[in-house]
Amino acid sequence: MGGFFGVVSKEDCVFDLFYGVDYHSHLGTRRAGMAVYDRESGFDKSIHNIENAPFRTKFSDEATSMKGNMGIACISDYEAQPILIRSHHGTFAITTVGKINNAEELANMVTSTNTHFFEMNNGEVNPTELVAALINQKENFVEGIEYAQNVIDGSISILILTPKGIYAARDKMGRTPVAVGQKSDGYCYSFESFAYLNLGYNDYKQLGPGEITVMDHSGVKTLVAPGKDMKICTFLWVYYGYPASSYEGINVEEMRNKCGHALARRDIIKPDLVAGVPDSGVAHAIGYANESGVRYARPFVKYTPTWPRSFTPTHQSKRNLIAKMKLIPVHDLIDGKSLLLIDDSIVRGTQMRETTDFLYESGAKEVHIRPACPPILYSCKYLGFSRSGSEMELITRKTICEIEGSNEIAKEILDEYANPDSQRYNKMVDAICEKLHFTSLRYQRLDDMLDAIDLDNDKLCTYCWNGKE
Amino acid sequence: MGGFFGVVSKEDCVFDLFYGVDYHSHLGTRRAGMAVYDRESGFDKSIHNIENAPFRTKFSDEATSMKGNMGIACISDYEAQPILIRSHHGTFAITTVGKINNAEELANMVTSTNTHFFEMNNGEVNPTELVAALINQKENFVEGIEYAQNVIDGSISILILTPKGIYAARDKMGRTPVAVGQKSDGYCYSFESFAYLNLGYNDYKQLGPGEITVMDHSGVKTLVAPGKDMKICTFLWVYYGYPASSYEGINVEEMRNKCGHALARRDIIKPDLVAGVPDSGVAHAIGYANESGVRYARPFVKYTPTWPRSFTPTHQSKRNLIAKMKLIPVHDLIDGKSLLLIDDSIVRGTQMRETTDFLYESGAKEVHIRPACPPILYSCKYLGFSRSGSEMELITRKTICEIEGSNEIAKEILDEYANPDSQRYNKMVDAICEKLHFTSLRYQRLDDMLDAIDLDNDKLCTYCWNGKE
Amino acid sequence: MGGFFGVVSKEDCVFDLFYGVDYHSHLGTRRAGMAVYDRESGFDKSIHNIENAPFRTKFSDEATSMKGNMGIACISDYEAQPILIRSHHGTFAITTVGKINNAEELANMVTSTNTHFFEMNNGEVNPTELVAALINQKENFVEGIEYAQNVIDGSISILILTPKGIYAARDKMGRTPVAVGQKSDGYCYSFESFAYLNLGYNDYKQLGPGEITVMDHSGVKTLVAPGKDMKICTFLWVYYGYPASSYEGINVEEMRNKCGHALARRDIIKPDLVAGVPDSGVAHAIGYANESGVRYARPFVKYTPTWPRSFTPTHQSKRNLIAKMKLIPVHDLIDGKSLLLIDDSIVRGTQMRETTDFLYESGAKEVHIRPACPPILYSCKYLGFSRSGSEMELITRKTICEIEGSNEIAKEILDEYANPDSQRYNKMVDAICEKLHFTSLRYQRLDDMLDAIDLDNDKLCTYCWNGKE
Amino acid sequence: MGGFFGVVSKEDCVFDLFYGVDYHSHLGTRRAGMAVYDRESGFDKSIHNIENAPFRTKFSDEATSMKGNMGIACISDYEAQPILIRSHHGTFAITTVGKINNAEELANMVTSTNTHFFEMNNGEVNPTELVAALINQKENFVEGIEYAQNVIDGSISILILTPKGIYAARDKMGRTPVAVGQKSDGYCYSFESFAYLNLGYNDYKQLGPGEITVMDHSGVKTLVAPGKDMKICTFLWVYYGYPASSYEGINVEEMRNKCGHALARRDIIKPDLVAGVPDSGVAHAIGYANESGVRYARPFVKYTPTWPRSFTPTHQSKRNLIAKMKLIPVHDLIDGKSLLLIDDSIVRGTQMRETTDFLYESGAKEVHIRPACPPILYSCKYLGFSRSGSEMELITRKTICEIEGSNEIAKEILDEYANPDSQRYNKMVDAICEKLHFTSLRYQRLDDMLDAIDLDNDKLCTYCWNGKE
Repeated sequence: MGGFFGVVSKEDCVFDLFYGVDYHSHLGTRRAGMAVYDRESGFDKSIHNIENAPFRTKFSDEATSMKGNMGIACISDYEAQPILIRSHHGTFAITTVGKINNAEELANMVTSTNTHFFEMNNGEVNPTELVAALINQKENFVEGIEYAQNVIDGSISILILTPKGIYAARDKMGRTPVAVGQKSDGYCYSFESFAYLNLGYNDYKQLGPGEITVMDHSGVKTLVAPGKDMKICTFLWVYYGYPASSYEGINVEEMRNKCGHALARRDIIKPDLVAGVPDSGVAHAIGYANESGVRYARPFVKYTPTWPRSFTPTHQSKRNLIAKMKLIPVHDLIDGKSLLLIDDSIVRGTQMRETTDFLYESGAKEVHIRPACPPILYSCKYLGFSRSGSEMELITRKTICEIEGSNEIAKEILDEYANPDSQRYNKMVDAICEKLHFTSLRYQRLDDMLDAIDLDNDKLCTYCWNGKE
Repeated sequence: MGGFFGVVSKEDCVFDLFYGVDYHSHLGTRRAGMAVYDRESGFDKSIHNIENAPFRTKFSDEATSMKGNMGIACISDYEAQPILIRSHHGTFAITTVGKINNAEELANMVTSTNTHFFEMNNGEVNPTELVAALINQKENFVEGIEYAQNVIDGSISILILTPKGIYAARDKMGRTPVAVGQKSDGYCYSFESFAYLNLGYNDYKQLGPGEITVMDHSGVKTLVAPGKDMKICTFLWVYYGYPASSYEGINVEEMRNKCGHALARRDIIKPDLVAGVPDSGVAHAIGYANESGVRYARPFVKYTPTWPRSFTPTHQSKRNLIAKMKLIPVHDLIDGKSLLLIDDSIVRGTQMRETTDFLYESGAKEVHIRPACPPILYSCKYLGFSRSGSEMELITRKTICEIEGSNEIAKEILDEYANPDSQRYNKMVDAICEKLHFTSLRYQRLDDMLDAIDLDNDKLCTYCWNGKE
Repeated sequence: MGGFFGVVSKEDCVFDLFYGVDYHSHLGTRRAGMAVYDRESGFDKSIHNIENAPFRTKFSDEATSMKGNMGIACISDYEAQPILIRSHHGTFAITTVGKINNAEELANMVTSTNTHFFEMNNGEVNPTELVAALINQKENFVEGIEYAQNVIDGSISILILTPKGIYAARDKMGRTPVAVGQKSDGYCYSFESFAYLNLGYNDYKQLGPGEITVMDHSGVKTLVAPGKDMKICTFLWVYYGYPASSYEGINVEEMRNKCGHALARRDIIKPDLVAGVPDSGVAHAIGYANESGVRYARPFVKYTPTWPRSFTPTHQSKRNLIAKMKLIPVHDLIDGKSLLLIDDSIVRGTQMRETTDFLYESGAKEVHIRPACPPILYSCKYLGFSRSGSEMELITRKTICEIEGSNEIAKEILDEYANPDSQRYNKMVDAICEKLHFTSLRYQRLDDMLDAIDLDNDKLCTYCWNGKE
Repeated sequence: MGGFFGVVSKEDCVFDLFYGVDYHSHLGTRRAGMAVYDRESGFDKSIHNIENAPFRTKFSDEATSMKGNMGIACISDYEAQPILIRSHHGTFAITTVGKINNAEELANMVTSTNTHFFEMNNGEVNPTELVAALINQKENFVEGIEYAQNVIDGSISILILTPKGIYAARDKMGRTPVAVGQKSDGYCYSFESFAYLNLGYNDYKQLGPGEITVMDHSGVKTLVAPGKDMKICTFLWVYYGYPASSYEGINVEEMRNKCGHALARRDIIKPDLVAGVPDSGVAHAIGYANESGVRYARPFVKYTPTWPRSFTPTHQSKRNLIAKMKLIPVHDLIDGKSLLLIDDSIVRGTQMRETTDFLYESGAKEVHIRPACPPILYSCKYLGFSRSGSEMELITRKTICEIEGSNEIAKEILDEYANPDSQRYNKMVDAICEKLHFTSLRYQRLDDMLDAIDLDNDKLCTYCWNGKE
């Protein structure tokens, strides 16, 4: 997905920019960049590949060499960003978070006006450059941003650094967040609101869906008021968010703890231990343990000191082995034990089956699986979460097709499978349980999960689970 | 402290060596190195500075370019290692873990025989080269290793790679561990026994105190039998070990859980939440929660994706700020709450006091501190743990001096302060509690902690807490 | 100025591309890049800063990792090139050599059509991207290139890599060259025709002024025929070209030798030695020596092993010292000697005066200066040679202003100063000679220099010397 | 061979050290290093591999980050240097130039005293460490250096940096030079005396054979007086030295010019052009041209901008092609011409034959070869010049064996072949001429060459040519 950070400061902003964006490293693994504007020396920009070394290593030079009073930066899961653009708007830097489903179509539309793009080496247009090109179709930034957000099929949030200030635009349905922090020296924009706390900023406001603001030393001004409708991504709480993250005022760790409570209240078995698959399953498991009184334990731990990301410098033939090597078993907490294990979700099921087999091999007596979210029945079409790849790879869909004996499943049938009180739902869950060798399987319920968030349900996107747009 | 790993394999050993030593990254942050021996191309060696990038990033080239059937590698907290030496023993590579208190004296002794050392840039002799020089004073490796271990004041464990096999020597009192793993292809030595599990090795044996072995493709042979006395470092369980680590068969996570149980059983207060300071305080806190029924929670989380180690590429003036930035508060779990917080230990107290103040500022109602080990009264003289710097910097010693009105404290008086049932102990604890602004303070008891390990108490070094050698 | 190279081959072209462009390293010192197209994997591109390390060091990875059957590459004295563009023409890579005087105006014209540019960090538009944008204004490449060349004030030669072949366009007046080489495997374009000789190519053709061709595996096709008028830069022979270079069939070394002959024939003094300032003065001096019988010698040598370019990694305060350090005196060939010294030209005179003073300090008895070209009276407005900076910095102009007592000099007066048979010319030369402390000064004559080239004089640009456009 | 530079200064010495040693880049291509001593921060040291990037690129960081009042540095053709050593002499840095024929034997001798060496990756002992170890066998530096020079079979010159000053020792027979420069700030040692001229130093003295001195801020003191016998390497003038170099007061360029004079005086043919193979053949050719009146020209040029050294980043299969690519033909100066070509020497003949064939292919009518030194009959055993590899690979020896019909040639016979007035000599030269496809071949005569140097002949080593030790 990626994340971004922007700062306007009376002092030099690079320290805050560097650490502020670094706190978004859990959101992207491919590229990162910083762009700053200094009243005297103008724009400066740097982008690095972060696939084989963390942001801090790659940007250690820039942390001291760059200077400026305003800047934007990003951790990107795809394209090189931020980019520096010159157009009839003047010069500006731009970074984005989101997904563009109709990129080819938009690129062709733009090039038909004799505009050009810098092609990326993989043969695609840089999505952020595409957004810039769309913005350039209109007379001013606000009209351009609105135009871009209207023609883009998907979701796009934007930061634009100009000599006069930083524009921010949250995507029209508020699927991803944009928070604003304030301290005496200035203001910042941030995807993750926790990112500015340790830098001395306080929560100032959050942009609403589709809201467009501009920030300078004198403050943050709303240029386009927020829309009424919101469909913020529920997966931010379930999987993407960091425990310290809060979205719309709802903390991720607390939400997960509450999910765990709900799972526990509905459960009937009494395992020896309850555990979470690190990192996102942990808080769910803690909630479960606290509610149920079952002992919380860590039968496997994630080896973090040098495994901050999944890069594997070598040995393609051993990729599977390497992928497994992040989790280290604690045999004394597995052998002869009945384990209840909570992972954030089950997508294709492969990984969870391997983990389960691994636990049996390590001596586990029983392995009860409790996914922290309901069965995923649809692929995300708004943010392109890799979590939910092609729909037909979903363990749910595969299983449903087997049960129904057809690859074409009517929407009404799928609706039934999404209903935890239906027979079809139970049949599917039992089949998955058997397929993946679990002792028992019980998914989180959608209603329980939404209760744990405590927002108006209409504001939450639940498309992955029930196909509601 | 540092850690090491060695492999002898029928196949190429570099993959195992690379990942095996990588699993020791929690033990060192300054240098890392790999040395291999190939029957055809001989020795190859590489050392990198890992202060600003993790082992895997720095050694990604070597992971594919090196080859050999035998190799040793290390993560070092101090000197460049392993080194490649030529002497009357022939050519060999050597790596060590430990501490040499009398390095200057030994270096002078050796240079007086017209031998030389490569000076490190900081003006000291490379301790591993010093060990090699001592080994070279005798006719063969075994006599040389024994000689080195006898004249060294401190503790030294050694791996030596020769064309004929890998020698390993555990330090004389077994203060640090050396495990042996076995799989069909070969054998490995490892400081951390969990390091070889994911690579397909099974536990084969552990070296006893002072034991010297040699490993080749046909097996592992003991050349010097283990001694009877052991003083393994208790801090391995309390702080240094990874949750998956086991030493002398005792798992770290379990030991910490049990410590938490003991702390809980002796406690009388009922806080809203119990939490651990990441990473080493967590398992103690889980144990406490499970035993007490108090809700376990994570009111602050450690930001790991790009913070695998403490390197700070920039801005010396902001070091303190940066140091604090690893922990991110979860306000909803702090505000208005009574917290019970477990950290592995209190050394100078500065950090814990800052954490406590930070929690109060974030709205905590009460902050009860439960260090996971007894008051540290003495500095380590065997392994040089930075945990227990100069004795006079210890919060305990400072407090005792204030109470006693003198900087010279008799051993009998110190013994009283080490006794949790004495008045002096209680006075000291109360004074520390007040000084550091805790709501309440209760240390782990030495007897409870030793019970949690379940080894013969004589085999555990408790010098830090009671001064027993 | 910069240079470029392009290859179409039946085999992989990267080896030829790498070494072919490397032979243009004398033409640029700031950026270099390679772009290739492979039928299977598409486009690949890489650009590096070559200010502190030579091309070969910076591109050693690409030399083995890139692959493709077609490619273009450049050594650039200014912008990052080649760039990869997507437009209504599809995807293409483009690199250019030349100068755009009206870049701001053209950029504004293009952005007014809602197109954007990637801004470079220094606040300017990348000139090569500007050329691409101009080409995109028209329906096809040929019309686009013609349009670009028509609207650009200055001079621009272009290589465009497309999946179907490589387009080349020589600038309209043929100010810079584009040669075509052929071997059994394919064809190449090259700024320097010698660059492909050692790679096994033979001379195939040279593009005429304004000629546009396209090259694929089947051959090279002319799309726009060459224009009749040519104004190739005479300075290519005098200064820019490498001794092995030939332009319009005239070899640089030979031309310089002939210039030396002419200088000698007109001279009257008999120095002990004749010497050339390395590198471009050397061949002139050899010619002078061969013609005059005066001993040719090297009283100072250029230290080349690690001084391939003028980068100075350090010590700004010592820049002047470092600049002088390239030339090393050979005292035995200076002391007590009467020297005749030939440099390619005198621009501001500073350097030649310093060299002369240095020779006197080293014991030289006389220092006779013979610039290899006539007095430079005008700044280049077609290629932007740094050789002829601002006109008022020219030693000629300064001296003329002093003589005339005015900063406004009429064209007719300047014409007189350009005439070597005029009194004003002699006055100027005498004044410069005195100012710069030379024993005697005699410039090359324009007619002699043009004779040495043996092309129709109308085809040679002589603007620098006589202001003829 | 390698070269070194050392500075003692009242000011910071790093600038002088950096540029001073950089001027030795023509002497080595593998490793380079700098070591400095600062009164406050002690020793600092850095070594880099310079095989794929020049010294200045690799040491650009050190040029600004290092500091100190004294330092030594080297360009090394073999081992990593300088090294930092601690022994009973205290701490010191050491760098050497020379060759040790009995390294294995000496290493075994030293290790038998229980000393160790750092093994290099290729399985050999670092020769400079070996020298240090030998020096450490004695009570003080002077005795140690004398001891080392006595037991070493070969030749060794040494710089030793200690907190009190820099020791220098020229090899016992003065085979390689050590010059001393002086300026107001301090003193320097240098292999190449021209290296300090541009840094503001004047010639102060040259060390005599075996002389040992120590240099500090107050001056340079001789500790061991120079020996009477000298055998300085004649090849320094013929091949190794830079044109600006002088040894024993004799300038390289002048010596080569004189050699050319001698060659010309003895010659009878009248070619169209005389040319030198760059770089070392050039000055000989200039001398020849000046004496003979034959036109001097450059029918091929060396491409220097990015070819400072022979590194070839890629494509092993094309090594031969790449090796040839340094020389670029100037066809107009070859086609139809009768060429007389001077190279410094003929060793195996391969290269000269290839060059000759290449000239014929480029249209040369005749190729007359004039090696600038006599036939090489013996391999260097003092300095290990790669110029004269294994004796049996010498074109002379091969030819002699063919003529004599035996592989065992008596010394008296070889003496005859070394005599330019003998029949055997003429037979050999004719055979070589035919074998290598030359039009004619005429070697420099030893007596003429020695005359060109103008030193007492006994002081010059002529072993390569006449086997005189």
